[in-house]
Amino acid sequence: MSIPIQWLENRGITAPQGFQAGAARAAIKSEGDDLALLLANTGSSAAAVFTTNQVKAAPVLISAAHLSANPRAIIVNAGNANCCTGTRGLENARQMAVLAAQKLDISPEQVLVCSTGIIGHQLPMEKIENALQSLKMSGEIEAEPAILEAGDEGALAEAFESDDLISPRSENDEIASEHETPKVEHLDESIARAFMTTDTVPKFCAAQLEIGGKTVTVGGQAKGVGMIGPNMAPLTLHATMLAFLTTDAQIERGLLQKLLERAVARSFNSVTVDGDMSTNDTAILLASGESGATISDQNAGVFSALLEAVCIELSKKIARDGEGATKLIEIEVKGARREADAQKIALSIANSPLVKTAIFGKDPNWGRIAMAAGKAGVAFDAQYLSFSLGEIEMFRAGEPVDFDLKSAEAALEKENVTISLDLGDGSAKWTAWTCDFSYDYVKINAEYHT
Amino acid sequence: MSIPIQWLENRGITAPQGFQAGAARAAIKSEGDDLALLLANTGSSAAAVFTTNQVKAAPVLISAAHLSANPRAIIVNAGNANCCTGTRGLENARQMAVLAAQKLDISPEQVLVCSTGIIGHQLPMEKIENALQSLKMSGEIEAEPAILEAGDEGALAEAFESDDLISPRSENDEIASEHETPKVEHLDESIARAFMTTDTVPKFCAAQLEIGGKTVTVGGQAKGVGMIGPNMAPLTLHATMLAFLTTDAQIERGLLQKLLERAVARSFNSVTVDGDMSTNDTAILLASGESGATISDQNAGVFSALLEAVCIELSKKIARDGEGATKLIEIEVKGARREADAQKIALSIANSPLVKTAIFGKDPNWGRIAMAAGKAGVAFDAQYLSFSLGEIEMFRAGEPVDFDLKSAEAALEKENVTISLDLGDGSAKWTAWTCDFSYDYVKINAEYHT
Repeated sequence: MSIPIQWLENRGITAPQGFQAGAARAAIKSEGDDLALLLANTGSSAAAVFTTNQVKAAPVLISAAHLSANPRAIIVNAGNANCCTGTRGLENARQMAVLAAQKLDISPEQVLVCSTGIIGHQLPMEKIENALQSLKMSGEIEAEPAILEAGDEGALAEAFESDDLISPRSENDEIASEHETPKVEHLDESIARAFMTTDTVPKFCAAQLEIGGKTVTVGGQAKGVGMIGPNMAPLTLHATMLAFLTTDAQIERGLLQKLLERAVARSFNSVTVDGDMSTNDTAILLASGESGATISDQNAGVFSALLEAVCIELSKKIARDGEGATKLIEIEVKGARREADAQKIALSIANSPLVKTAIFGKDPNWGRIAMAAGKAGVAFDAQYLSFSLGEIEMFRAGEPVDFDLKSAEAALEKENVTISLDLGDGSAKWTAWTCDFSYDYVKINAEYHT
Repeated sequence: MSIPIQWLENRGITAPQGFQAGAARAAIKSEGDDLALLLANTGSSAAAVFTTNQVKAAPVLISAAHLSANPRAIIVNAGNANCCTGTRGLENARQMAVLAAQKLDISPEQVLVCSTGIIGHQLPMEKIENALQSLKMSGEIEAEPAILEAGDEGALAEAFESDDLISPRSENDEIASEHETPKVEHLDESIARAFMTTDTVPKFCAAQLEIGGKTVTVGGQAKGVGMIGPNMAPLTLHATMLAFLTTDAQIERGLLQKLLERAVARSFNSVTVDGDMSTNDTAILLASGESGATISDQNAGVFSALLEAVCIELSKKIARDGEGATKLIEIEVKGARREADAQKIALSIANSPLVKTAIFGKDPNWGRIAMAAGKAGVAFDAQYLSFSLGEIEMFRAGEPVDFDLKSAEAALEKENVTISLDLGDGSAKWTAWTCDFSYDYVKINAEYHT
């Protein structure tokens, strides 16, 4: 049975009730806004996960320390990661919290700090201070987002028909947007734009669901197109990535943290661009409680599906916008003994330069899929392994299938490519996302100069 | 104290006494010889390590089964990996051993089988059978290799001056070769050429050392330029790689296996091109005993140094010839609590696409080095981390160093680049090798079609 999620057109982190936000230009990046603030109302609760890289940027250290104070605001800058900046960098991150707190009239411990951009340079604190003075916070946004028109419900329901608990939004889902011109200057988009670095598009979305008779909304925004690479540890975040999530559900902090960790494992922790793990990764979930819906262990599953749908939608946007990407690749592994095994194999394929270059070259080189599955460090019997590229079965129970090469090449002409494996060894499954590996990845990363 | 190893010019696996070899064209590859045989004399012993990929090619399964019979011959073909070929592939690998055994008048169990090339296609057995008929084995090669002239000993000794037990051969070491025109048609080179796939140069070398008054020689050849990626497990082989090693020392099988595993961990298992691990990787060491020198636990250290020097020399040749490579990158990690920790960090840096593209772009983007060290999954305190690129210190005890950008860029103009890290946390160290990541890596792997 599908859960009837409604996607909200052109909305992001201020779609849920109880949040204010604002963006400004501090001129750390060469152009555009590069500083943003987000504030949740007083009754809110907070959860966060951080990079497991041993080299942690100063803002990660400060935010991790502030998490126990149940923070309700985020300050974020782009253009400078404030990482490998020593003791002065730590003072600057702390000072960012102080400046944001003064602006918002809260205590510094209630502020989480995020930075993204170049490593090894000190932050231009004066620019940040000046930009904060000019930054205007939105009034509280009323929860009247543009929702789908009545006639589209059938199409939407169809899009969600699946055996899975919840269907992710289709990449080609234009249902909502065909009825209205996108509001380019919308607040949510401008906040999402303010933390972009080499991203080519802002990544944000919002969706809602009835829970116990109340409408619960989850909004989110994410950034990151390179230095994106999870490792295998579950429930920790790995990616050159910042993700801010908001909801107007009422959720106590312990449960909120648990639900965030679960959603991150199944989304941001399962997307990879280059396998490299950033020093600054942070995902934050703030819950305002203003919808009046209270989430407890009893109804957490339904909220979890909504939160995961938003996180997966953002993860796919990250993979599709990966540095140099021409395709979104989805890797589904099933028939594993354990979820962790399926995850390792899915990520091993997602991280394989040989698989990713073959797909860029539109070459159905299925031997590389077998190789990448086998190198994941998971014991399985290749005699029971089967896999397909798109609809085309290439390997069945340890034997090659004599498939039609032309059809396989046609499948690789599509912008979305799916690789499906069955280990034939159990019922656990996992999905990961990546992009292809093109000349432009090398260009972007070799020609980007320090 | 350095151990005075002598490198032998243009020699490889038949440099040690007691080996015969031959190559022929089976027309599996589009041009050149693609089938080779190696035979050790009757008193020999054998050791081997194989890929840990769960998807193992048929020849790996057959060779692993034959290892307990103390084999003394190798048959190898290029152009076809005989992998993912099901039950027929397994029969074909077994048949290769039978055909080689008939040719050499030994039993099939005494033959190890290696294949390299495309995955998923059945071997052309008739071509292999025909080529074997035309293949001529060399007579036993007498151990009279070209050694250095007397006047060069000082230069050689100087080249080996180091605190390390043994210095690897310098990339620019032309000491031996300046005295003789290279013999392009030499047997060792032709055998090394016969197992090349996308390699641009044959990779072989030989060196010798006095042990207990006897001259002991080690020869070797390796192939592999892509699908080269070790994982962390010590003492197992990981790489799209075949390596054949020979020696005329007398070593019993248990010790021989131990010495091979140790040498592989410090060489082939520490070289990476793309982090992908092949389904066919095999390293084999055959010991003929004909030098009259017996190696036991007492003098194993000296022999080990010789074997490791040959394996490291071959590993550097693999990294330098990596697909699309313009540079050899050496990563030295010291100050770790454990060797395994230093190894993980060295390989994490060696596998980082962001580090490798930066070096291709000649950009001293040291933040990426810090990132890659931190993501290795090894706990360390970044406050004590220091590192240099070439001679230029960039980060000292957790603080950025204000280095000269022009000098750093000049260091990256060189063909050999060294990255040195000190964790400041112990005395264990490890070295890994890789190459830069260029447009040509993408070209080679996207345009290679199934």
